[in-house]
Amino acid sequence: MTTDLDTLSVNTIRGLCMDAVQRAESGHPGTPMGIAPVAYTLWQRFLRFDPADPIWPNRDRFVLSEGHASALLWSLLHLTGVRAVDPDYEVLGRPSVTLDDLKTYRQLDSRCPGHPEYRWTSGVETTTGPLGQGVATSVGMAVAGQWLAARYNRGSFPLFDFNVYAIAGDGDMMEGISAEAASLAGHLRLGNLCWIYDSNRTTIEGHTDITFTEDVAERFLAYGWNVTTVADANDLDAAERALHSFHAEHERPTLVLVHSHIGYGSPVEDSPKAHGEPLGPDAVRETKRFLGLPEDTDFYIPDQVYERFAQGIGARGGTARTAWQSRFDAYRVQYPELADEIERMQRRELPDGWQDALPTFPADAKGIASRDASGQVLNALAQAVPWLLGGSADLAPSTKTRQTFPGAGDFQADDRSGRNLHLGVREHAAAAIANGMALTKLRPYWSTFLIFSDYARAAIRLSALMEIPTLHIFSHDSIGVGADGPTHQPVEQLASLRAMPGLLVFRPADANEVVETWRVVAGLRHEPAALVLSRQPLPTFDRNRLAPASGVAMGGYVLTDPPSGNPDVILLATGSEVALALAARDELTADGVAVRVVSMPCWELFDRQSHQYRDQVLPPAVRARVAIEQASTLGWERYVGDTGAVVGMHTFGASAPLKQLLRKFGFTPERVSQAAREQVAANI
Amino acid sequence: MTTDLDTLSVNTIRGLCMDAVQRAESGHPGTPMGIAPVAYTLWQRFLRFDPADPIWPNRDRFVLSEGHASALLWSLLHLTGVRAVDPDYEVLGRPSVTLDDLKTYRQLDSRCPGHPEYRWTSGVETTTGPLGQGVATSVGMAVAGQWLAARYNRGSFPLFDFNVYAIAGDGDMMEGISAEAASLAGHLRLGNLCWIYDSNRTTIEGHTDITFTEDVAERFLAYGWNVTTVADANDLDAAERALHSFHAEHERPTLVLVHSHIGYGSPVEDSPKAHGEPLGPDAVRETKRFLGLPEDTDFYIPDQVYERFAQGIGARGGTARTAWQSRFDAYRVQYPELADEIERMQRRELPDGWQDALPTFPADAKGIASRDASGQVLNALAQAVPWLLGGSADLAPSTKTRQTFPGAGDFQADDRSGRNLHLGVREHAAAAIANGMALTKLRPYWSTFLIFSDYARAAIRLSALMEIPTLHIFSHDSIGVGADGPTHQPVEQLASLRAMPGLLVFRPADANEVVETWRVVAGLRHEPAALVLSRQPLPTFDRNRLAPASGVAMGGYVLTDPPSGNPDVILLATGSEVALALAARDELTADGVAVRVVSMPCWELFDRQSHQYRDQVLPPAVRARVAIEQASTLGWERYVGDTGAVVGMHTFGASAPLKQLLRKFGFTPERVSQAAREQVAANI
Repeated sequence: MTTDLDTLSVNTIRGLCMDAVQRAESGHPGTPMGIAPVAYTLWQRFLRFDPADPIWPNRDRFVLSEGHASALLWSLLHLTGVRAVDPDYEVLGRPSVTLDDLKTYRQLDSRCPGHPEYRWTSGVETTTGPLGQGVATSVGMAVAGQWLAARYNRGSFPLFDFNVYAIAGDGDMMEGISAEAASLAGHLRLGNLCWIYDSNRTTIEGHTDITFTEDVAERFLAYGWNVTTVADANDLDAAERALHSFHAEHERPTLVLVHSHIGYGSPVEDSPKAHGEPLGPDAVRETKRFLGLPEDTDFYIPDQVYERFAQGIGARGGTARTAWQSRFDAYRVQYPELADEIERMQRRELPDGWQDALPTFPADAKGIASRDASGQVLNALAQAVPWLLGGSADLAPSTKTRQTFPGAGDFQADDRSGRNLHLGVREHAAAAIANGMALTKLRPYWSTFLIFSDYARAAIRLSALMEIPTLHIFSHDSIGVGADGPTHQPVEQLASLRAMPGLLVFRPADANEVVETWRVVAGLRHEPAALVLSRQPLPTFDRNRLAPASGVAMGGYVLTDPPSGNPDVILLATGSEVALALAARDELTADGVAVRVVSMPCWELFDRQSHQYRDQVLPPAVRARVAIEQASTLGWERYVGDTGAVVGMHTFGASAPLKQLLRKFGFTPERVSQAAREQVAANI
Repeated sequence: MTTDLDTLSVNTIRGLCMDAVQRAESGHPGTPMGIAPVAYTLWQRFLRFDPADPIWPNRDRFVLSEGHASALLWSLLHLTGVRAVDPDYEVLGRPSVTLDDLKTYRQLDSRCPGHPEYRWTSGVETTTGPLGQGVATSVGMAVAGQWLAARYNRGSFPLFDFNVYAIAGDGDMMEGISAEAASLAGHLRLGNLCWIYDSNRTTIEGHTDITFTEDVAERFLAYGWNVTTVADANDLDAAERALHSFHAEHERPTLVLVHSHIGYGSPVEDSPKAHGEPLGPDAVRETKRFLGLPEDTDFYIPDQVYERFAQGIGARGGTARTAWQSRFDAYRVQYPELADEIERMQRRELPDGWQDALPTFPADAKGIASRDASGQVLNALAQAVPWLLGGSADLAPSTKTRQTFPGAGDFQADDRSGRNLHLGVREHAAAAIANGMALTKLRPYWSTFLIFSDYARAAIRLSALMEIPTLHIFSHDSIGVGADGPTHQPVEQLASLRAMPGLLVFRPADANEVVETWRVVAGLRHEPAALVLSRQPLPTFDRNRLAPASGVAMGGYVLTDPPSGNPDVILLATGSEVALALAARDELTADGVAVRVVSMPCWELFDRQSHQYRDQVLPPAVRARVAIEQASTLGWERYVGDTGAVVGMHTFGASAPLKQLLRKFGFTPERVSQAAREQVAANI
């Protein structure tokens, strides 16, 4: 039952949000003011979250999908007294969000930035702001919760039973990614997932009547969700009843549709003006008066509000976590191996000896597509790393990402233990769901064709920004796609992915480079990676005659050198074009040209090597250079210099069998040799 | 009523699709075989389309959103006898698709590539293949139809009343972009739009039961659509009734949900095996036997099938088009100016004297944000070019793309004449809708923040692949966004857009460069462009002391040179960083360093200039070069060489006021000057 203290607590949050935005002279006050009562009810009465250990594995997850309402989250984290966590998952003594942080909202280095940033402020479960990402990511968290329960719960040890809550705004609900995620969540019957739809019907251009008049509740019923409505966001008891209805529902995800008022209590209530700018000092005072807050006190927090949080969510969360820890200690005695898995996973470590599972591939001129090699490595690795799991956006048979060993199975509503997700033709949600699984400390991957990475870019970017080891697997990586034509042939996608800070992009040249790529990416703890794989077979190189594939770890390495050791020209290539470089090398060698071939599977790793190493691979004195890649040439000048040549794609592709395309677009040994000869001639 | 000849016609199409795929030994036979009867019914009994003039402005539009079923479209275009059209919109004598083209399906230079390609094969209304794009684009076509009707129809001259049909598969329906587009289409009550949902419930990973179990019909009802069902795709009369229900419905878009069987009649009916590979010669024979086709004749087309098409769609379309032409001739007499608009639009020309509308901006040290300058230019231009219209993904007040002059108004269900669309928080559909409007010969733009171009990349790509002049307007183009932080600060987006073939990316440096940018992009006929604009004010340069902004047309130009004309160092920059380059130049000049500043608003245009011009701007002898851009450095080596320096972004941004960010990330005159001095020292 709602008390005066509840009301005071809610209004205290509203006051903090207004003040933070006002002091910053920038930010979003209106959304927090509208939804604060529901967020408060959730945190205070339901959320199972221990502020003393914000990374407790079985905590409920709270996602603020309408990330512009960050001031709400900062206020909650401060009032709850959440502790900070370091990047290696140690809980620290200091609070996550101090009052000073709140006062420096949106200033450089404040723990209260403009939008919630994972890893920067503990208690933030995922970075949000780009709309739709939070809710889609929450589906991945709910999937992870179900999978963890299926794998690790034992009779008297229900180790994993957390719920996942996300607050979403009208903008979230308009984004396609949320539709994709909701459809899949309904299909998977994720009873542990609750979206709270903060329907204030106000967006930047005006009332949603101008563009968004669909019946959202009906839509979610069509997806197979449980839908319940809160007619007035200020009715805490109604919100409580709605959340009880979620708790009572185990077969379907729940949408709580809340009718709210942006900028509640302020002069700009229900207006777009309440969205993205400070209210102004006068309006702040007027609103505080309306809310019963002292109008001349900034950042007003009565002691009893702190106490209310401590006695509510704090006490409940602490008790729950302590009980869980005891349970886990007993579990460890009975199931030491499973307990070890859980603990390793939390630290983002892998089982001992996981590298022993990696195969090697014998030399084979006919070879194997790198997607096929990757599928084999993935299957070997997944047996050594039980929490390596994932799915495909309806392309597993093509991307070769299905785990096919006995017992791998499908993750479905009737079997939560499966290792293979059918994500549907929903690339954007697929990537966000993988992010959500990674945030829950699983090692997830998802896959599609490289061309369709475009559909998922915003979610891929978030994996990089959050520094989480999501694996993005992209096959059909070039005009090698063949007759499907230019709509399916990536050209600019490699450059686009390489331009993204913090993403490691690998394009292995043969099966053993695939193995070494997996060796690197499996070990990543704080970085996402993109694996870029061929549709067509690539020869498996004879490593007795060429450098070992372990050079992949350096990002780029000398694959072969002329007997003299003094190359006239350097050929650089990635993926399928490395074999082409070797073929051109043979031609050139026969003509007396001394050729070095450099394989460059991962630019980002190469750029991290010492200056000395990079100069060894690409000696500054050798200016004659040709890069070869079936992709946009953008960026290759970094390695070939402005005098070097790039044999690449300058247009979109075409629909034809691969051999015809290679001729049309000039990916032939003759063309590469000619470019090399021209380079040598120009640089003598 | 269905006749034997109808059945024979449908099965002829199926035979052609099977044979084309079989001969190509690659392709997608199953989907065409399943939906052929409905496509046939639509074309034969409803589609108002004259094969003798496939670009007649009032033709019904047909979009094959499930583009992998291209063999179906190639068969229809061949049987209908559609004529070819050249890139400048002249109808040619030769057919669009010959029998030889069908026989060379998916071979190099065949008019029948793997997926429908706009401009390559006439009769293709939009390029499809990436799922969801076709249906979303169809919404733009329907919007355009309504707008054209509102502007040009007069009492007895209903010039524009065409319908837009799209056939979509399960994959289309799973993609978020289609959800966004359907929501908006429902809101806008596009009664001229009909999606035919080819529900064969089979995707690459298997039956849709594994991932897609929502109630699509209910979902579309929630969007406000009219929904009708065809229980059996082979029931032509049922399809006819459904399409009549669309014709009878004027207030809502219509979804015709068709239950179909992938690979109908073949041994792999209802199996994913029917999706993406040839059936095999034996199965083809067996299927032909089942369908009553001669099993040993490839590409069998009875004469009466050709005749059926000629007497059906051909005769109906010809009559309609001839009648329309007479109507238009009379209209031209009565409304010569409106008729002139329509004709210019069809040729992608602009009204005479449109350039007179462009403003110039006086020098102003305080300046104006380039988004604001763009808004002013757009408003001036839109008054001169009535069919320049567009909208924003809920950010018009921020991107400054609203047309605010009297009478501009909103495009809504109750007023189709408005020039401003409220596209909602639906970036991906927004871009595709703009494409659809461009395909209907309007000059559309849409806008969002640069960071959210990521959400729309796949549709932006299609504008480039189709070579249509869609304008993509992106504001908030760098860390200049400020306190919203890294989720909202683009870093890699510029490089990503520049990597895309055929897209002109402009980042103007001041208000007059904005004017010149609009001068270029307004005149584009066959290329899309991206306008990349600042949130923060940029000084308007004093062009008496600097080169004129008309240099924008060259992509890059010398803005200022040292008095000697012999620079020691070249500073290159775009957008907001040009002012920084000028500030650094002042510092360096005071120190006796001779500096050239080059503004590079559009790399793509610069790269098209003569070698001589490029060497004039960037003399090979001047190796000391510094590029400055608040973005990923990827690609700048092309202009600064491998010895040059780039002051750019190497990480994601941060949440803080802009001044703090400029210091943190090193965008200060001191840092640029220092880099320049180092360059000069290293290159002496």
